[in-house]
Amino acid sequence: MRNTFGNVLTVTLFGESHGPETGCVLDGLPAGFAVDEEQLKADMAKRQGLPELSTARREADEIRIVSGLYQGKTTGTPLTIMIANQNVRRSDYDELTDKPRPSHADYTQYVRYRGYSDRSGGGHFSARLTAPLTAAGSLVKQMLVSAGIEIGTHVLCLGDLNDRPFDAVQPEIREISEKNPPVLEDAVLAEMKAAVAAARTEGDSLGGELETAICGLPVGIGEPFFDTVEGHFAKAMFAIPGVKGIEFGAGFELAKMKGSQANDPFVNREGKIETEANHSGGINGGLTNGMPVIFRTVYRPTPSIGLPQKTVRLSDGEETTLTIHGRHDPAIVLRAPVIQDAMSCLVIGDLLASFYGVQWLEKINR
Amino acid sequence: MRNTFGNVLTVTLFGESHGPETGCVLDGLPAGFAVDEEQLKADMAKRQGLPELSTARREADEIRIVSGLYQGKTTGTPLTIMIANQNVRRSDYDELTDKPRPSHADYTQYVRYRGYSDRSGGGHFSARLTAPLTAAGSLVKQMLVSAGIEIGTHVLCLGDLNDRPFDAVQPEIREISEKNPPVLEDAVLAEMKAAVAAARTEGDSLGGELETAICGLPVGIGEPFFDTVEGHFAKAMFAIPGVKGIEFGAGFELAKMKGSQANDPFVNREGKIETEANHSGGINGGLTNGMPVIFRTVYRPTPSIGLPQKTVRLSDGEETTLTIHGRHDPAIVLRAPVIQDAMSCLVIGDLLASFYGVQWLEKINR
Amino acid sequence: MRNTFGNVLTVTLFGESHGPETGCVLDGLPAGFAVDEEQLKADMAKRQGLPELSTARREADEIRIVSGLYQGKTTGTPLTIMIANQNVRRSDYDELTDKPRPSHADYTQYVRYRGYSDRSGGGHFSARLTAPLTAAGSLVKQMLVSAGIEIGTHVLCLGDLNDRPFDAVQPEIREISEKNPPVLEDAVLAEMKAAVAAARTEGDSLGGELETAICGLPVGIGEPFFDTVEGHFAKAMFAIPGVKGIEFGAGFELAKMKGSQANDPFVNREGKIETEANHSGGINGGLTNGMPVIFRTVYRPTPSIGLPQKTVRLSDGEETTLTIHGRHDPAIVLRAPVIQDAMSCLVIGDLLASFYGVQWLEKINR
Amino acid sequence: MRNTFGNVLTVTLFGESHGPETGCVLDGLPAGFAVDEEQLKADMAKRQGLPELSTARREADEIRIVSGLYQGKTTGTPLTIMIANQNVRRSDYDELTDKPRPSHADYTQYVRYRGYSDRSGGGHFSARLTAPLTAAGSLVKQMLVSAGIEIGTHVLCLGDLNDRPFDAVQPEIREISEKNPPVLEDAVLAEMKAAVAAARTEGDSLGGELETAICGLPVGIGEPFFDTVEGHFAKAMFAIPGVKGIEFGAGFELAKMKGSQANDPFVNREGKIETEANHSGGINGGLTNGMPVIFRTVYRPTPSIGLPQKTVRLSDGEETTLTIHGRHDPAIVLRAPVIQDAMSCLVIGDLLASFYGVQWLEKINR
Repeated sequence: MRNTFGNVLTVTLFGESHGPETGCVLDGLPAGFAVDEEQLKADMAKRQGLPELSTARREADEIRIVSGLYQGKTTGTPLTIMIANQNVRRSDYDELTDKPRPSHADYTQYVRYRGYSDRSGGGHFSARLTAPLTAAGSLVKQMLVSAGIEIGTHVLCLGDLNDRPFDAVQPEIREISEKNPPVLEDAVLAEMKAAVAAARTEGDSLGGELETAICGLPVGIGEPFFDTVEGHFAKAMFAIPGVKGIEFGAGFELAKMKGSQANDPFVNREGKIETEANHSGGINGGLTNGMPVIFRTVYRPTPSIGLPQKTVRLSDGEETTLTIHGRHDPAIVLRAPVIQDAMSCLVIGDLLASFYGVQWLEKINR
Repeated sequence: MRNTFGNVLTVTLFGESHGPETGCVLDGLPAGFAVDEEQLKADMAKRQGLPELSTARREADEIRIVSGLYQGKTTGTPLTIMIANQNVRRSDYDELTDKPRPSHADYTQYVRYRGYSDRSGGGHFSARLTAPLTAAGSLVKQMLVSAGIEIGTHVLCLGDLNDRPFDAVQPEIREISEKNPPVLEDAVLAEMKAAVAAARTEGDSLGGELETAICGLPVGIGEPFFDTVEGHFAKAMFAIPGVKGIEFGAGFELAKMKGSQANDPFVNREGKIETEANHSGGINGGLTNGMPVIFRTVYRPTPSIGLPQKTVRLSDGEETTLTIHGRHDPAIVLRAPVIQDAMSCLVIGDLLASFYGVQWLEKINR
Repeated sequence: MRNTFGNVLTVTLFGESHGPETGCVLDGLPAGFAVDEEQLKADMAKRQGLPELSTARREADEIRIVSGLYQGKTTGTPLTIMIANQNVRRSDYDELTDKPRPSHADYTQYVRYRGYSDRSGGGHFSARLTAPLTAAGSLVKQMLVSAGIEIGTHVLCLGDLNDRPFDAVQPEIREISEKNPPVLEDAVLAEMKAAVAAARTEGDSLGGELETAICGLPVGIGEPFFDTVEGHFAKAMFAIPGVKGIEFGAGFELAKMKGSQANDPFVNREGKIETEANHSGGINGGLTNGMPVIFRTVYRPTPSIGLPQKTVRLSDGEETTLTIHGRHDPAIVLRAPVIQDAMSCLVIGDLLASFYGVQWLEKINR
Repeated sequence: MRNTFGNVLTVTLFGESHGPETGCVLDGLPAGFAVDEEQLKADMAKRQGLPELSTARREADEIRIVSGLYQGKTTGTPLTIMIANQNVRRSDYDELTDKPRPSHADYTQYVRYRGYSDRSGGGHFSARLTAPLTAAGSLVKQMLVSAGIEIGTHVLCLGDLNDRPFDAVQPEIREISEKNPPVLEDAVLAEMKAAVAAARTEGDSLGGELETAICGLPVGIGEPFFDTVEGHFAKAMFAIPGVKGIEFGAGFELAKMKGSQANDPFVNREGKIETEANHSGGINGGLTNGMPVIFRTVYRPTPSIGLPQKTVRLSDGEETTLTIHGRHDPAIVLRAPVIQDAMSCLVIGDLLASFYGVQWLEKINR
């Protein structure tokens, strides 16, 4: 349903990049969970990214929880998160009203909403909307962590620079949990920073990949035939602006593998049925199999670049040139891990709530 | 919702591999469309694949439409497709009741349904379920074609053997529409057939990739923030057994590109606003931009192989060895194009119905 | 969603009065429940009504379960029920193609489906569709009964003839469980039979009311703000052809009561918090309060009557006269209790599944 | 879905009676509609009721629209309405924490949310939540009115005092559109005011009925089998605190009528197919038939009364006595017409959006 995600634990998203406030409504939370607001703030700060690596638009991103929280604990009724937009500069977008930016949502939303949507800064299609999503997902993450589930996302590559991938059987989630941007190999981070600086100087931008791992999920979660674990994660990830691909386990490498290589034989590991390798990414038949869920996403290079670009005027259809002057990230992928983590938590929370019902958190604790 | 896909044009799927019948219910079809049942039969035959390339289990796959069709035309009320399972051999699966096949859904469904699901041949998780989905999607495809929309899927690669990719701006859909398996380069097909024969002899299986192109969609279709075109296709594709990844446009290649390379400048092509290249795969901000929608999926090698494999007995947790004797495809990817086409049509139909409402087909015709 | 009811335990309905088969798909059932097919048959027989009281169209109503049942037990995957239409007589409806029957769905569906729906016998809008619904609901009823929940419906009135209402605190469900039609006062049944016979002779029909009681529900079930227990039951009941009103507890009588009369004071009954009276019908704030859920529905008199009626020809808009010759019930309300029971069970099952999750039946058992 | 209503035009509701803010998110609005904020204010004022007739809690009910509105027009993306709670007095509810008020949601939500919900003033179950719903529905009403659809609700009865019912074929909507409380017979209003004053003096409360009429709907709107027009309205109405029954057209009177009396013969009225009478309340087979949609609801007397009442302490299960000191309405039914109007508009908007798609308002205009 458009701006509502999830079947049982749902998030409804609203707001525009340059409107007064953005926010979201979380419905289906268990009652009685003590929310750590300091941790939420820390996660929001991570999303801002390092000043030298990201957009010049700085927002306080202060979270107001206006419903669903009472005496510091969730009530079980809808929890609403509001975030004010403060550092708004509409004038940056005056020229863009008539000149759609290539590979942005300017043209498509112009047609869809017949010119009436608020397109400043991308409007409702802006990455700004990931602020309330990050807050919501981070809140759910606190619940998951309390139930022994671990989630982590790192920058697998930025342009040509590659981090070491997670170990598919024992992903090193704890190694990256405190880092920002999170990478397994510290050496590559310095190179990444240099690459971003260079891209900014060139007026260009960089793409990359993120890798997420989730440990501690029960076996048999997921809702086939259509609400597979893969499909549910995929739908959520494609809502993050810039994501254009996703793969689970060995992913596209599976095309070149034979069944005898790709199959994950079952083994008995200390009394638990597990698989030897994890080419399936923790999912068989759309259901969790108890191994870590592992997936990778690709983020396109930020479409906002400083270089002149060809476009067409909406008013008369004439081809013309456009130079973007707004404040943008040369590499959104460095800020995206906390967003991807948060979206993953919304997915996991919904899968668990679908399985365990209203008091899902308490049930999984046992 | 589990076994129902779509928001407005929905398909509800049921059946097991070795149960009496499989089928599905299509709801949200427009009234008054004359269904070509011969074309449906032809599509069902494509899904069977070439005898020498696929499973020894041959099914007539005769379609019975038991509701929603009157005097050859859709009524607008739910249309139900039934397909009997005839060539059933449960005894092939006796050993498997206690020994889950690696990378199949045997173990996960055993846990999820606490041993009560009918696991013969994969049960409800079997690729057998793609038979009614193919019928349903092919029926919707007839509607889309009548409205000037073209859909085509080809085998982009099988193991190490590669077909030529679609031209992203003018995909050669018509070149492959009559072929089975569909490939752009006929030369590669002979090699693919030989590779499948070799894999069968070895008792092994092959993975591969499919590429789908869709032309003729209106601009602005899709339902952000969460029901993006990418997300909606992805969720549908991951429901096809064996799919482990999906990418749109330039996909994972975008990680290595700069914004100045990846962006698709707007041009005026004979009075229409289009883009010069199509690295975005026809989608910006989750909405169609009028260019061809292009995506690629990866199919894991069929997990059923003839070679002995390690597994664990469910009854006592002991590690043991398993040899699968059932009838299986060494390369499901060769049969999957018509399935992926059909699923794509269910996605497109739902996107259009969400946009245009109950009489969506007539509206888009205009 | 149109032909799918429920959020977690869902039923998808299909078929037409004179098509080959009707049926439905139940999704969200727990795995491992042993279905009593003899009991299903008995419930289907109840729906047929007594021969002397109902339509001359007799159907075997044989149930085929084609998926979701294995070795007599539910698998947890979609369970599909098929019922063939055998006693079909389309010729009865020839005249009606151009002359819509007053207060039937003929005219509205003609407009909605632009003349393409199969209107024989009401088509998809026929009470014939309650056959698969009754089967589905009766199956769920077996589950509820196993968990200690009791459901019963009786004929509260037929025209001017009234049965005694349920005791709101201790409804006499067991007294009517074996009766068909179910009434608390046997004396009134003879009068009802005579009234039906008289109406048939006059070529006229009778309306009436049903009353349903449900005991044994846990406290706190329901999903406010919008999926209230009242709202969920109401939506289901209005899907039964002929229902035009519903009231809970004291219902419309509450308009004339003062708060001091209408309120249900809390009492401690053998250690349980209960209410003294039950004017609220077991529901406060849209959630069950542990008291019996009680509601009443009104069924309009069957619109099919033998007397001549005014109508308008669809072809030219001319006013004309119509006499209906089909086989119809003079008082559908006598056959409806088992239908209303079944629909209630679908509602309760969905409420419980929403609360307890996938293994809802086992959870509530404890 | 719990706190989200609607299939295509959806409203997501949040907030508590004594929390900082309540609000809602409207998704599925057409783009480009100029919202009349003055009219919204006027509708909010109507909901407050006359000071002498309603609660002593006075709220400014100032509406902030924080998304989805740009330059005074809807953008087509989610529109969010926020309303601050200002006149909050938690201390009124201290005693109630342990003593559930009879026939309120205190006990049921205590069990459901295991003591963690914010129960002051009813919390999330409070009629306070109808403030944002009224704002949302009134906004949609502006759209409907612009398309020639008329909606009106009047107080049909308050206790024993009755207003004249609507003419079912030509309901006198315009006669009551400016009145507050709206009644057709002005004479009865003075009696109603006196009755409310008397009830307040007695420390008691009154119930009543409302009647709603909707004119100008197209024929064939509604989504059978389950999303009937009756069912969709019913579900919405039962979300309004205090509603315990609903009936359409002749409603419960139909139980006593014969088919020959209840049926609505078709006539040709100035070239349009209409019905002579309107016992069906404008709905046949769950679809609109072009006649006015007419329904009546019953509101229980406000459960908050000043008289002492029996209850049970949650802490120890002991029976005790409770006297409510909060600020409450002796007759919510007088304030409810604008709420019922607003909820009706949300229902109608959703039915139209389901039928006509994204640009539903423009389509229906034609």
